Amino acid sequence: MSDTATAGTSNDLMEDGSLSRLTIDTIRTLSMDAVQKANSGHPGTPMSMAPVGYTLWSQFLRYDPATPDWPNRDRFVLSVGHASMLLYSLLHLAKVEEIDAKGQKSGHEAVSLEDIENFRQIGSKTPGHPEYRHTTGVETTTGPLGQGCGNSVGMAIAERWLAARYNKPDHQLFDYDVYALAGDGDIMEGVSQEAASLAGHLRLSNLCWIYDSNHITIEGKTSLTFDEDVGKRFEGYGWNVIHVDDANDCAALSDAFAAFRATDDKPTLIIVHSVIGYGSPIAGTSKAHSDAMGEEVIRETKRAYGWPEDKSFYVPEGVIEHFNGAIADRGRPAREAWDKARDSYRTAYPDLAKELDAMLSDSLPDGWDADIPVFEPDAKGIASRDASGKVLNAIVPKVPWLLGGSADLAPSTKTDIKGAPSFEPGNYGGANFHFGVREHGMGAVVNGMTLSHLRGYGSTFFVFLDYMRPPVRLSALMEIGAVWVFTHDSIGVGEDGPTHQPIEQLVMLRATPGMDTIRPGDANETAAAWKAIVKDASHPTALVLSRQALPTIDRTKYASADGLEKGAYVLADSEDPQVILIATGSEVSLAIGAYEQLRSEGIAARVVSMPSWFRYELQSDDYKESVLPKAIKARVSIEMGSEIGWDRYIGFEGKAISMATFGASAPIAKLQDKFGFTLAKVVDAAKSVMETK
Amino acid sequence: MSDTATAGTSNDLMEDGSLSRLTIDTIRTLSMDAVQKANSGHPGTPMSMAPVGYTLWSQFLRYDPATPDWPNRDRFVLSVGHASMLLYSLLHLAKVEEIDAKGQKSGHEAVSLEDIENFRQIGSKTPGHPEYRHTTGVETTTGPLGQGCGNSVGMAIAERWLAARYNKPDHQLFDYDVYALAGDGDIMEGVSQEAASLAGHLRLSNLCWIYDSNHITIEGKTSLTFDEDVGKRFEGYGWNVIHVDDANDCAALSDAFAAFRATDDKPTLIIVHSVIGYGSPIAGTSKAHSDAMGEEVIRETKRAYGWPEDKSFYVPEGVIEHFNGAIADRGRPAREAWDKARDSYRTAYPDLAKELDAMLSDSLPDGWDADIPVFEPDAKGIASRDASGKVLNAIVPKVPWLLGGSADLAPSTKTDIKGAPSFEPGNYGGANFHFGVREHGMGAVVNGMTLSHLRGYGSTFFVFLDYMRPPVRLSALMEIGAVWVFTHDSIGVGEDGPTHQPIEQLVMLRATPGMDTIRPGDANETAAAWKAIVKDASHPTALVLSRQALPTIDRTKYASADGLEKGAYVLADSEDPQVILIATGSEVSLAIGAYEQLRSEGIAARVVSMPSWFRYELQSDDYKESVLPKAIKARVSIEMGSEIGWDRYIGFEGKAISMATFGASAPIAKLQDKFGFTLAKVVDAAKSVMETK
Repeated sequence: MSDTATAGTSNDLMEDGSLSRLTIDTIRTLSMDAVQKANSGHPGTPMSMAPVGYTLWSQFLRYDPATPDWPNRDRFVLSVGHASMLLYSLLHLAKVEEIDAKGQKSGHEAVSLEDIENFRQIGSKTPGHPEYRHTTGVETTTGPLGQGCGNSVGMAIAERWLAARYNKPDHQLFDYDVYALAGDGDIMEGVSQEAASLAGHLRLSNLCWIYDSNHITIEGKTSLTFDEDVGKRFEGYGWNVIHVDDANDCAALSDAFAAFRATDDKPTLIIVHSVIGYGSPIAGTSKAHSDAMGEEVIRETKRAYGWPEDKSFYVPEGVIEHFNGAIADRGRPAREAWDKARDSYRTAYPDLAKELDAMLSDSLPDGWDADIPVFEPDAKGIASRDASGKVLNAIVPKVPWLLGGSADLAPSTKTDIKGAPSFEPGNYGGANFHFGVREHGMGAVVNGMTLSHLRGYGSTFFVFLDYMRPPVRLSALMEIGAVWVFTHDSIGVGEDGPTHQPIEQLVMLRATPGMDTIRPGDANETAAAWKAIVKDASHPTALVLSRQALPTIDRTKYASADGLEKGAYVLADSEDPQVILIATGSEVSLAIGAYEQLRSEGIAARVVSMPSWFRYELQSDDYKESVLPKAIKARVSIEMGSEIGWDRYIGFEGKAISMATFGASAPIAKLQDKFGFTLAKVVDAAKSVMETK
Repeated sequence: MSDTATAGTSNDLMEDGSLSRLTIDTIRTLSMDAVQKANSGHPGTPMSMAPVGYTLWSQFLRYDPATPDWPNRDRFVLSVGHASMLLYSLLHLAKVEEIDAKGQKSGHEAVSLEDIENFRQIGSKTPGHPEYRHTTGVETTTGPLGQGCGNSVGMAIAERWLAARYNKPDHQLFDYDVYALAGDGDIMEGVSQEAASLAGHLRLSNLCWIYDSNHITIEGKTSLTFDEDVGKRFEGYGWNVIHVDDANDCAALSDAFAAFRATDDKPTLIIVHSVIGYGSPIAGTSKAHSDAMGEEVIRETKRAYGWPEDKSFYVPEGVIEHFNGAIADRGRPAREAWDKARDSYRTAYPDLAKELDAMLSDSLPDGWDADIPVFEPDAKGIASRDASGKVLNAIVPKVPWLLGGSADLAPSTKTDIKGAPSFEPGNYGGANFHFGVREHGMGAVVNGMTLSHLRGYGSTFFVFLDYMRPPVRLSALMEIGAVWVFTHDSIGVGEDGPTHQPIEQLVMLRATPGMDTIRPGDANETAAAWKAIVKDASHPTALVLSRQALPTIDRTKYASADGLEKGAYVLADSEDPQVILIATGSEVSLAIGAYEQLRSEGIAARVVSMPSWFRYELQSDDYKESVLPKAIKARVSIEMGSEIGWDRYIGFEGKAISMATFGASAPIAKLQDKFGFTLAKVVDAAKSVMETK
């Protein structure tokens, strides 16, 4: 490849000294300079993809740099997150204005030249990979490959739903497009393949992926491991596939984007053949992928671009005006027209407008929780997955933007909204999403939906969290309110056996910073969990639910389930308790059983229901002491999962009744017996820790 | 679909009362009866795929039921693991003989009729999903969808490598084929897509996937979410695609398998159009997917098959003889010829034969560890990933079946074997595997390689463990010796930022039963880790390595790195220590620094290096007490990861210096300072816990 990569060949497609050429070369040189100064980063893709970013932003993207949070803006997702300098350069040259943490304009640039000079430095707006919330204009956090592709599908889905629900013949409030820039790595990842298959099925014609096909990965040429016919694969998924033979051919790029805009029945993949590190002596090789290029190479490259060799972080006069102007001249009037339309919408459709206002301001309609059921005490009870289904069905009619579905397990995870249609081509207002057997894709799509004003939820069996760990982690890193509904949460799964029985999954979630993990102990705790979730969209939640029926605890006899909001609470108590039983989920009723038996034997116990470590750890020391007094060292934890982490609450003298191995295939009662989750074992453990102490 | 699904249509393709038809219907009725008796399971796919299993096993599979561990047997992988009754029926009717845990013939059937009657019961040979090791003839544990597909690629890769290394013109020791049966779910999952792309690239013509296209998933018809052109997609991957229009058409199936056998330049996908729950009144609907069908439906279905309605678990006379005979008549002579060839190989190629014997018996050649370097004390030191690369390069020439590579990060993970060629079409003897940016696929492929006599290893950045959790978990569940090399193990990653900095990943691994997680503290601990790994293939290991240089500890001054084998050991000590500093990986040298400073201030400290919790927990109570005496409660743990789990070793009075949040993008020194991993902070923590106590 590298022989075609020298400057002065395809760059000639652009007029020397033209503002378009200058803007493109500014993106390239800013990227080289920033990586060089940081001595870290990835210059090659920003250099090759600069014409793509330039053409898309200046000619197509409907975006108002002064209002980057305009809900109907086109979205640009940099799935190839290591090429962050491309995005930072675009944001800088477009003069995007910063929106602060409170949603207000700060008066600063989203990315200043100083930020670019501080690329990858502590506290700068320009971290190694683009981070949502951290930098205005970054639509999603990317870097883990393929995730941005999946997010973009969720954003496109959100537009379809928003349009179906809120658009009226005279008010087209939502008609944004979503673009994602992907590299070879993104395209190889399973998550993008799952998302692409779903997008093709859903006929998302508002979605355009740009695939930077540069034939180079970190280990060398893609021919080492990746020589498939990507276009044919995407045609198999039902996509429109367009080839652009030379990334420097802005006219061809423009034609391709126009063809995407003209396509109304399927998503579009534009395969752009490019030369990584274009213009540099190492162009077209894996050396151009990452790391600073060195002063000499940079000098030579700038020379090839016809750039002043001695200037770093140089933005020629007129470039910002040109680029910002091209974007703003299209985006500002569009945004202003939208503001007016939204105003008149308030008069024409007051109810929908009110709903839309609530959604866009992250608030809740009055009485949103009025229909949430209270579950009567019941020894037989119901599975927490069933309770969850009932509660969800009571909330969604009031909060319709709480939207989601399952990775082909809705009949089991109980997340379907009864009577509501499916979200599908021809019915984009549907509320039930069928993500298919694509957990990873579902996770990335739900994140994309949640990044687009919705509260997305996705459900599957708990053990299949493993299939979707990357987007679950990213939801926590981005601090977005995605909801992960995981049912079949323990060896309670029974006959399906160890492949389907979670053991380490609770710990995995609890160890993820910012992730609320709630494992409710009965139906009323499940209702309390959903209330807590819907009220607070500032972080994701994993709701961990049982397959099997759980007794509905008598709250007149024991404490209210409202205690869930604090993460842990005293559910049953005695005067001067000698031992504390701490349990979560399906083991809470076992703890109550043991408590009652101990009581009948004259032993004063306390039961602490601890559905959320995350919430408990946020409480005051006083509250914590009131629940788990330091003086009481005789403690038993009961949870059908890994023991790891419980020592924090039971200490050296405590005992954890937990799973030390994988499970087994058998009816649940046999498994509870085999693995020690019986009344007798819990009572024995309580007595033994009292003796030890 | 269901109108075409009634019995007496396509079943007529098979002669009534013929042994083939009887065998097929026996598979179907055993499956129905077993699910009915267990009141749990998935009858629909065994019923529709019975002719596929029958045709493949009776006409093509080279398999000796009396020697199911014959190394050159064809492999049959049931990727659609919930259809376990199909496999159990095949194993029973083929009269496969059991191999016990010691590798000896037990004299029992692998799956008896009684086992089938005890489907999904505790301790039976017939758990809900097929489990490797648990049941002879089960080639891999399946159930989590797509994994078997990925494993099959690894098995096919193993054959190519074994053939390239050991075959001689007069001794074709390895020429087995690998078949995997996949359902819609398998085909939708990203892991199978990654694996398929890799298999196409590698031109694995010994690999055949059978795709059961029944258009039904749990939520209903696949048209709800999955309407892509799968054949076209696979052609894009470079596969040979064959359609069989009716799963009951054994002649067409036979032609398809013959076409696969005749294809020598690419893998084959046979798309079999089938009717789920064939023959039953609920055929062709999602109701046939799972759960017991009910006595009445079973009766009606048996009637449709022309089967005695009142008989359960009925195997007509002649069926076992017919089926076992068809398989054994082909497999036995082939296996006997192979045994002879292997004997003569010992004479003709004694060195290779010795190597092969060692590999097949899971033993190691004399002097296998002779070249492992000893690293001299060095304050600057080297990154543990670099040390790992050197050690690996010293072992592989002696143990060539230790084989693997990276998901496009070999230059960073340092797993390349220097001077060795890449494994690629035309050079299947190559030692360096390029898995591409396909972590999940890599994981499943490495498991497949490890299930085929090799010690497979796969490497990537530690944070991308998230992309491959399912196969990592399965390696632990299967108790196979796969090696997961994870580098860039903490915020030590630096500028790449929080998307690339592991926090919760160590806990995820530690909570996985049976997984040894080793985070060595310097180059010599890294060497000790590889020694421990290679010596013991009975469980998987995750080797967690630094990006940054770690000082090479002076082992003449402090304890030997051999202590690693016990998981934790006293590295530096004082008389009557007042405080214990426990550290892993890159934090071990920080602990030593603090120890020396405390010492200079007259405070007696102990440093415990704790690279593996897994190994430590296997030690005697005496040993544990000698390392972490109960009496010393002033303890500090230091690890750049989640705090969760450390309470076990530091107790209520201890202090964990750990990561409570995600990391950030900046040079490493700035991050160590920001997050409190400094000498001063460790010394302060040590003093504070001494006061508390």
